[in-house]
Amino acid sequence: MHAVAELSLFPLDKGSSLSPYVARAVAIIRDSGLAFELGPMGTCIEGPLAQVMAVVQACAEDLSRDCDRVYLTVKADLSRKGPGRLAAKVRSVEEKLAPAR
Amino acid sequence: MHAVAELSLFPLDKGSSLSPYVARAVAIIRDSGLAFELGPMGTCIEGPLAQVMAVVQACAEDLSRDCDRVYLTVKADLSRKGPGRLAAKVRSVEEKLAPAR
Amino acid sequence: MHAVAELSLFPLDKGSSLSPYVARAVAIIRDSGLAFELGPMGTCIEGPLAQVMAVVQACAEDLSRDCDRVYLTVKADLSRKGPGRLAAKVRSVEEKLAPAR
Amino acid sequence: MHAVAELSLFPLDKGSSLSPYVARAVAIIRDSGLAFELGPMGTCIEGPLAQVMAVVQACAEDLSRDCDRVYLTVKADLSRKGPGRLAAKVRSVEEKLAPAR
Repeated sequence: MHAVAELSLFPLDKGSSLSPYVARAVAIIRDSGLAFELGPMGTCIEGPLAQVMAVVQACAEDLSRDCDRVYLTVKADLSRKGPGRLAAKVRSVEEKLAPAR
Repeated sequence: MHAVAELSLFPLDKGSSLSPYVARAVAIIRDSGLAFELGPMGTCIEGPLAQVMAVVQACAEDLSRDCDRVYLTVKADLSRKGPGRLAAKVRSVEEKLAPAR
Repeated sequence: MHAVAELSLFPLDKGSSLSPYVARAVAIIRDSGLAFELGPMGTCIEGPLAQVMAVVQACAEDLSRDCDRVYLTVKADLSRKGPGRLAAKVRSVEEKLAPAR
Repeated sequence: MHAVAELSLFPLDKGSSLSPYVARAVAIIRDSGLAFELGPMGTCIEGPLAQVMAVVQACAEDLSRDCDRVYLTVKADLSRKGPGRLAAKVRSVEEKLAPAR
């Protein structure tokens, strides 16, 4: 199965400056070689389900080296179609958008 | 409180072509005048908490005109800071990204 | 539309002892008179969509009295059917569970 | 790292009777031997992060045998503490609940 998964993860025990920790996870995602896209509330990753899950786990394990508590959400759309869905999903909505009122 | 909220919503009773329904919600978000950003797994909306919640509810009510079952997720980061966080949150992570290996 | 919504919310600027803040939100949910159920990862609320959304907003506003940053997730199943879905949804799965291997 | 993870997953191409598919996932979770708790909006699983992730992936792979599109959300709280958090997290909130008004 091909996955587009949005990952959000951050420590709960390091105060409210979360971006250094998010950046560590994003670096792991980028270095995985999978397609990805950074967004305001999470990072979307695209690839075979097993590879995407392995990257999510690697991100969580990296934070747990120095964080005692980590919060994580994943939201994924699994399909037989792929690759290229990261862009195709957005384009498909944009094409159907009614003109602004 | 200022909110950056990511909304995903789609019908559960209309088959797997979801983009026409997502596009209706995105049109409502766009017409609200709030800042927003379309992504592969949801649409981020930025604004005062009460206004963002009102837009989320308007999207759900619009789909319920012709859908008997709707699934909805919201993930929000509420802060005293704003506006401009939609871009600032991404920039803050990008600035801290280690160089690619 | 009738909603079953699971709410998770907690401050990001108060350390990792989150239960006092969660308890404040749960008290607001309980005092709303809507049906609810506490779980390990969130609290499910059942009622008309507008009332459920109002309770979610009241919880977020209560935390923002003394928290500078709050994280919130909502996952909702909207349906024309109701009330009683909080129990019916679990029962419906349990009835279909294959015997343990 | 010890995880309490709530999993929701269902097909997007099989109409709105989702409970037979949810029951298949719950059977896999139960047969894994990990502690779990069924709820109205998802199933909470408790165990070492790697084992919990493996069960989530097994559930998704099982549905993909006959579903062409699957939606999945995971919300997890990772901690050095455990086991027993499935019950402890709820108890900790209940103990702090203000008396009903």
